[in-house]
Amino acid sequence: MVAADRSAIEFWFDFSSPYGYFASHRVDGVAAEAQREVRWRPFLLGAVFKETGSRPLVDVPLKGDYARRDWERLSRLYGVPWRLPARFPIATMAAARIFYWLEAAQPALAKPFAQSCYAAYFGAGRDIGDSGTLVTVGEAIGIAAGDLLAAIDDEASKQRLRAINAEALDKGVFGSPFFIVDGERFWGSDRLEMFAEWLARGGW
Amino acid sequence: MVAADRSAIEFWFDFSSPYGYFASHRVDGVAAEAQREVRWRPFLLGAVFKETGSRPLVDVPLKGDYARRDWERLSRLYGVPWRLPARFPIATMAAARIFYWLEAAQPALAKPFAQSCYAAYFGAGRDIGDSGTLVTVGEAIGIAAGDLLAAIDDEASKQRLRAINAEALDKGVFGSPFFIVDGERFWGSDRLEMFAEWLARGGW
Repeated sequence: MVAADRSAIEFWFDFSSPYGYFASHRVDGVAAEAQREVRWRPFLLGAVFKETGSRPLVDVPLKGDYARRDWERLSRLYGVPWRLPARFPIATMAAARIFYWLEAAQPALAKPFAQSCYAAYFGAGRDIGDSGTLVTVGEAIGIAAGDLLAAIDDEASKQRLRAINAEALDKGVFGSPFFIVDGERFWGSDRLEMFAEWLARGGW
Repeated sequence: MVAADRSAIEFWFDFSSPYGYFASHRVDGVAAEAQREVRWRPFLLGAVFKETGSRPLVDVPLKGDYARRDWERLSRLYGVPWRLPARFPIATMAAARIFYWLEAAQPALAKPFAQSCYAAYFGAGRDIGDSGTLVTVGEAIGIAAGDLLAAIDDEASKQRLRAINAEALDKGVFGSPFFIVDGERFWGSDRLEMFAEWLARGGW
């Protein structure tokens, strides 16, 4: 029996975030263990970085080299496929707009779409910043190309994502992945164990 | 039986780093479990931040608030005393110079001195950027005030710390705490569990 939505876990991530990708393979398991639901919340890390003055990891001297090795290591540790895409990082507003359109119009497909985007990007190295690629990803799970392209360019869709990014900032989400439960925030895929313990103990 | 020095763990930290402080309470246990020695390596995070363009956590919008709450949470989780000092962050070259002077002159006292600095700063909120405070901390473990003040101002001592900071940069140490073993690098106190697993399994 899964608890009501008010106690759902918020899982914030950017589709271009490797650590978000690794966390996406584990967050549902952590939540299920604690009998919680997960609300997947894709957002644009770039919008937040404007606020914090941060840069993409791979652009930061020293940190970039570390991260590349770390991603390989996490892939082996968790048995999750990994490839650093040729185009990386990318702007992910198209994928995020589709996600929220699905969440409203065909909610059962929103999470599968997000998982497929991650699999295409970090599993297969395909450029999910490209509309054509997103159409293929969407069609594979039964979404019509026309609906999907409309969801990218629709004004309501753009406004929805702007509101989501504003919500992320408002909640103090400054990185990807980011987990929020009952107002408590955890940043980073390497905080999933602590997050699981927090859920199990009801905090400390 | 502890292994020879060539396989010691390097524990890099800044005396003004809260996450370094929390890690300092756990790294020796992790190492002992793996029958490894630990080489404590205080350095100046500011010197590295010049390279990476990073800023102290508390100066970063959103991140600062998160970190303050996170430190309280870690203190409760690990049962480690915690106080955010009135002066924070601070420049820690004096404490670091004394550490390396001790390492050469009275090696058995180097780690106790480092632990006492952390306890004075984050446990009791005393300003270890101040020479007078460092004299008190040193005297409590039997170091003569004159020796200690000389270690701060000695030209050889300054050169030694510059060399250490250069070594940190050279090894790609961009944060605190940072752990290196057999050439493999782990960043952050929240990587200690993974680091322990790496040691136990001999990598993966």
